[in-house]
Amino acid sequence: MAQRTVSRRTFLSLAGATAAARPLMAATGSWGFDEPTASAATPEWHDQGVLNLAHSPYAKLHNVPVRAVTIEDGFWSKRRKTNVESSIPSMHEELLEHGRMDNFLRLVGQSNAPQKGPVYSDSDMYKWLEAVAFALQTEDNAQLHDAAQTTIREIVAVQEPSGYLNTYYQDDRKKLRMTIPEQVRGHELYCLGHMLQGAIAYYRATGDPTLMNAGQKFVDGYLLPSFGPEPDKKPIVSGHPEIEMALIELYRTTGERKYMELAGYILQGDPRANLKPQQIVYMNCGVPFTTKTRLQGHAVRAMYANCGATDYYLETGDQAYMKTLEVLWSDLTRAQMYVNGGVGARSEGEAFGEDYELPNAQAYGESCAAIGNAMWNWRMLAATGEARFTDVMERALYNGINSGMSLNGILYCYRNPLAFDPTTGEKIRNPWYDTTCCPPNLERTFASLPGYFYSTAKDGLYVHLYDNSKMQWKLESGNGIVVTQRTQYPWEGAVRMTVAVEHPEEFTLYVRVPGWSRASQVAVAGKPVSGVRSGEYVPIRRQWSGETSVELAFDVTPRMVMANPAVEQDTGKVAIERGPIVFCMEGMDQAKGTDAKTFPLYLAKRDGAIQGEFKPDVLDGVMVLTHSGAKRMESVESLYAPAGAEAGKVEAAELKLIPYYAWDNREESSMQVWVPWVG
Amino acid sequence: MAQRTVSRRTFLSLAGATAAARPLMAATGSWGFDEPTASAATPEWHDQGVLNLAHSPYAKLHNVPVRAVTIEDGFWSKRRKTNVESSIPSMHEELLEHGRMDNFLRLVGQSNAPQKGPVYSDSDMYKWLEAVAFALQTEDNAQLHDAAQTTIREIVAVQEPSGYLNTYYQDDRKKLRMTIPEQVRGHELYCLGHMLQGAIAYYRATGDPTLMNAGQKFVDGYLLPSFGPEPDKKPIVSGHPEIEMALIELYRTTGERKYMELAGYILQGDPRANLKPQQIVYMNCGVPFTTKTRLQGHAVRAMYANCGATDYYLETGDQAYMKTLEVLWSDLTRAQMYVNGGVGARSEGEAFGEDYELPNAQAYGESCAAIGNAMWNWRMLAATGEARFTDVMERALYNGINSGMSLNGILYCYRNPLAFDPTTGEKIRNPWYDTTCCPPNLERTFASLPGYFYSTAKDGLYVHLYDNSKMQWKLESGNGIVVTQRTQYPWEGAVRMTVAVEHPEEFTLYVRVPGWSRASQVAVAGKPVSGVRSGEYVPIRRQWSGETSVELAFDVTPRMVMANPAVEQDTGKVAIERGPIVFCMEGMDQAKGTDAKTFPLYLAKRDGAIQGEFKPDVLDGVMVLTHSGAKRMESVESLYAPAGAEAGKVEAAELKLIPYYAWDNREESSMQVWVPWVG
Repeated sequence: MAQRTVSRRTFLSLAGATAAARPLMAATGSWGFDEPTASAATPEWHDQGVLNLAHSPYAKLHNVPVRAVTIEDGFWSKRRKTNVESSIPSMHEELLEHGRMDNFLRLVGQSNAPQKGPVYSDSDMYKWLEAVAFALQTEDNAQLHDAAQTTIREIVAVQEPSGYLNTYYQDDRKKLRMTIPEQVRGHELYCLGHMLQGAIAYYRATGDPTLMNAGQKFVDGYLLPSFGPEPDKKPIVSGHPEIEMALIELYRTTGERKYMELAGYILQGDPRANLKPQQIVYMNCGVPFTTKTRLQGHAVRAMYANCGATDYYLETGDQAYMKTLEVLWSDLTRAQMYVNGGVGARSEGEAFGEDYELPNAQAYGESCAAIGNAMWNWRMLAATGEARFTDVMERALYNGINSGMSLNGILYCYRNPLAFDPTTGEKIRNPWYDTTCCPPNLERTFASLPGYFYSTAKDGLYVHLYDNSKMQWKLESGNGIVVTQRTQYPWEGAVRMTVAVEHPEEFTLYVRVPGWSRASQVAVAGKPVSGVRSGEYVPIRRQWSGETSVELAFDVTPRMVMANPAVEQDTGKVAIERGPIVFCMEGMDQAKGTDAKTFPLYLAKRDGAIQGEFKPDVLDGVMVLTHSGAKRMESVESLYAPAGAEAGKVEAAELKLIPYYAWDNREESSMQVWVPWVG
Repeated sequence: MAQRTVSRRTFLSLAGATAAARPLMAATGSWGFDEPTASAATPEWHDQGVLNLAHSPYAKLHNVPVRAVTIEDGFWSKRRKTNVESSIPSMHEELLEHGRMDNFLRLVGQSNAPQKGPVYSDSDMYKWLEAVAFALQTEDNAQLHDAAQTTIREIVAVQEPSGYLNTYYQDDRKKLRMTIPEQVRGHELYCLGHMLQGAIAYYRATGDPTLMNAGQKFVDGYLLPSFGPEPDKKPIVSGHPEIEMALIELYRTTGERKYMELAGYILQGDPRANLKPQQIVYMNCGVPFTTKTRLQGHAVRAMYANCGATDYYLETGDQAYMKTLEVLWSDLTRAQMYVNGGVGARSEGEAFGEDYELPNAQAYGESCAAIGNAMWNWRMLAATGEARFTDVMERALYNGINSGMSLNGILYCYRNPLAFDPTTGEKIRNPWYDTTCCPPNLERTFASLPGYFYSTAKDGLYVHLYDNSKMQWKLESGNGIVVTQRTQYPWEGAVRMTVAVEHPEEFTLYVRVPGWSRASQVAVAGKPVSGVRSGEYVPIRRQWSGETSVELAFDVTPRMVMANPAVEQDTGKVAIERGPIVFCMEGMDQAKGTDAKTFPLYLAKRDGAIQGEFKPDVLDGVMVLTHSGAKRMESVESLYAPAGAEAGKVEAAELKLIPYYAWDNREESSMQVWVPWVG
């Protein structure tokens, strides 16, 4: 494909892109907000991405604004539409119904309802606000904007003169505030962290710093004067890590280095807190982050701690941090991650298990932990520019995160098992959890998705994810750039991109070749690029001018994968993947004719080609795979039986597989990702 | 084999059997003990078995005295010799060294040492005393007798006038005694239960009721007046079930029905304790026993509760109890028991997992839980006379219990995993645990073993276990009987028995045919018996007179077994058994020549004959099996890899297997019970 001339108008519209995203602001006539104390060099609010790494000295890659990327009709569009139209509004109703705002209103005499929900309930509202904020970064939505404005007004009304703001620690509980036992269990700083993240996203959506100012006031007025490493101050325990990355993002937004330093102190752990060893393990805090040698304890806490630590590295370049992070990442990918990108195998303590402890039916794999995994890898990617992190992020995103929300957007998984026996009576997808951390976490993730497609670097642009989309942004030189993608990814491996620059410029376009693609091709302006390797970014350095086509072809032939023999739950089993998608079998799709009840009911042939067909009417449109295998014809009653006795009990059957993320969206049924093999 | 004439002398020696077991008593000249309040019909102390079921109306089978059976040179003799000569004495030293007796002595001013050990530390001494007591039931041992006498004297010296006796609840903790939170965590009644069990065993060994009287005084003086279902009494919480079976045995020993009634009240659960649902599940108490529908919570607690409930059934015939016990037993054998007879899959909470949750490397399988399993099945056997219970008991005894003590008798397993990777650095066998419940529990089990070989019933005699041995006892008619066994069981399947009766009598000899024997033969006086079925007692009803030979032949051909497909950790794997013995592979026995580190290192062929050879010099003499299989030639680095990529990495190898119980008795090595198959 030849380069085309790009009209000047395309680039002029860049400047308008952010303005177009804020008609609501225009409607208010004047903002009248107190501008936050930001360093002069900080990008303006509307130019800040999911992370604002513009001035992070050790960030190799820099985020582009969420609003710079428009995801068009394709794989993610339906999910994102449902997110904004159903998930975020219905979750708002659930939150109100379950008293999450009454908790605030009660404190200013506007509600008589008693305190509701667990100690961390304020964070539910903040995470929901963050979802709204990311949604507002890419689209007008007066209803969500109004709901957010109301919510923020009602939240800040509760802030005490000291800056303290937490609806749980009121009345008799006031005296417990920020005592060590409460820091261990009370999630005060976790709530503050989510408040700051929501507030920053909202500021980046609207320029409105109201909530961010409140968060800053909490830190400046309440936290910094009384807590810290100094002998006259009290120690901080990061009972549930989250505050670390929030404080660093606050630093990146305001330019005030004290927030980053506070995060560094917290990551160091204050020995004066005198935590028990099992508390340190469970909470993933309390000792210097750099003393960690493995992933353990509560999985979400571990992932959030890793996010904070990577953020700290991005600002300080402390190599001890990067060394630890690499050790933990190796632990993740060597022995701790599910094939769906989920982490945290154990229900008990929502925790990492031993190396290779990856049960399927009992897998915990909390949605929040998979999100934390993606967030951490996003930061590692920023630090290094290495595609191995993007591979993990993509695996989590398309599978263990995407599974967390039902296709209709109003049911959520807390745990994401890799096998399911419906006779257990467990309900995996639910509209509400009293600990409702996962639903708004999923919502904020899908709302922020455009911000993960690209990064800029000193020497060019990185392309991370693929879907029909258009990016209108600028290179770090300031040169305008528009990138479009036309693809049926992840169902097909072909991606047709166009890269258009305002002015001719030599730079490198780094195009990600997914690790799963066994044969990949890249062509620029119709000419093949050499040195294309799976699991790497192909650097395409050239003089770019006008519009250039970049064509990619990845191999989406279905693949059978096996787990490391040390995963004792997956021995003698295969999982089937196609492109970035992990597949599973639901019992309802399989041939019937047996009343066997022994789970798993179906077995797969180890050899033979797997067929795929896209079915637009199935599960909002999915690739359905078929493969030969067998079904069990009798229930196996005995716990232990002579080998071979079982062989006669299966019968050949064609197996149907659907994407794992879409399981449990129809009638209740059995599900298997790892399928024992036969023949 | 023809019947032989039996001399009158053989039977005259029966009367002397018990006298021979108590030369120490003769040495003291006169007992001078207060005899316990026993019903006139209760057998004398020396005639009571592990359980005294002589007057339990719903016991179909009745125990024979431990001293009635002499285990001679054979499979168990070395273990039992080591138990008495090394285990019990060395554990005594460990207990003293770790302050377990100082805890008592301090209270009467004879020690300055501070309180040592966890809240349940008194029970360590009681269980050790019980081990000594059972040892003294079959042999003279002045040293152990003296040590026990000293221990008992020091224990009873601490008893308060109220009857209360617990060294933990002293000083500041006095006010906590038997409060609900302490009943939940404090093990006061657990300690009392072990005190009673130890005391009863000691009484049955020596006729000395000193400790039993102290235990009775605790119940009569402290417990019964203030605790119970009456509105003016305080509720009892059985924080760790144990007291139930102890109280019922106290009833069986003293004839005082109030102890049985108290056990019934405890098994019923007192709602006034207001326990949380998770406490009820974990502790296996607090709600009526008959409301249980599955095995869950702490495994040892569950097993001990089941023991108490079965004891209660044996006395009351309450069918609701038996119904519940059958449901729980079905749960055990359908979905919860390891192939080694171990139970309680999870380290977390030392608990049962979900159905079919049976991890191997991470298996908890506490020694105490396997012992509890055997104890429970022993009671179920007494209630029913059904061999399915004996099969479970035998499985636990030869494997998951027998593994708990090292061959040299001074190291113990707390957990009994079914796979072990030494690179984890874990040490499975240790001389001491601060929670040292398992070591003396193993010791009391091995010491009491003769008591499990036979039972009497109204219509005859049951033979449960096989080893070279001699029983000198009497039928329930009062007719003297001597049974000898000559066998190399469990290594070989032939057992030559002789049955000699004092007077000719028609009765049934019930000979157990193990469930694992696929082809079995029984001959009486040289004539084959028809209707021999695996997993049943063969009833041989005839007129017995003089001495009669009974010959048994079981099939000990090595067997490959597979687990139910629902056990996801065992898919694609086999375990190898021979007779009652479960085998395993230790890495040190296998062909070397590879530095692969990926666990499991070895794979087995699914087909082909397994060879066995008895090696007298290996591991105190064991059958060693060989089988063809493969070894891994490369470490597998990736967590997930394309299927088939692994196939080229293994190489044919001959595998060597040793009995599971003998693992980890040489240098540290890998171990696998479940072996993935190849070819």
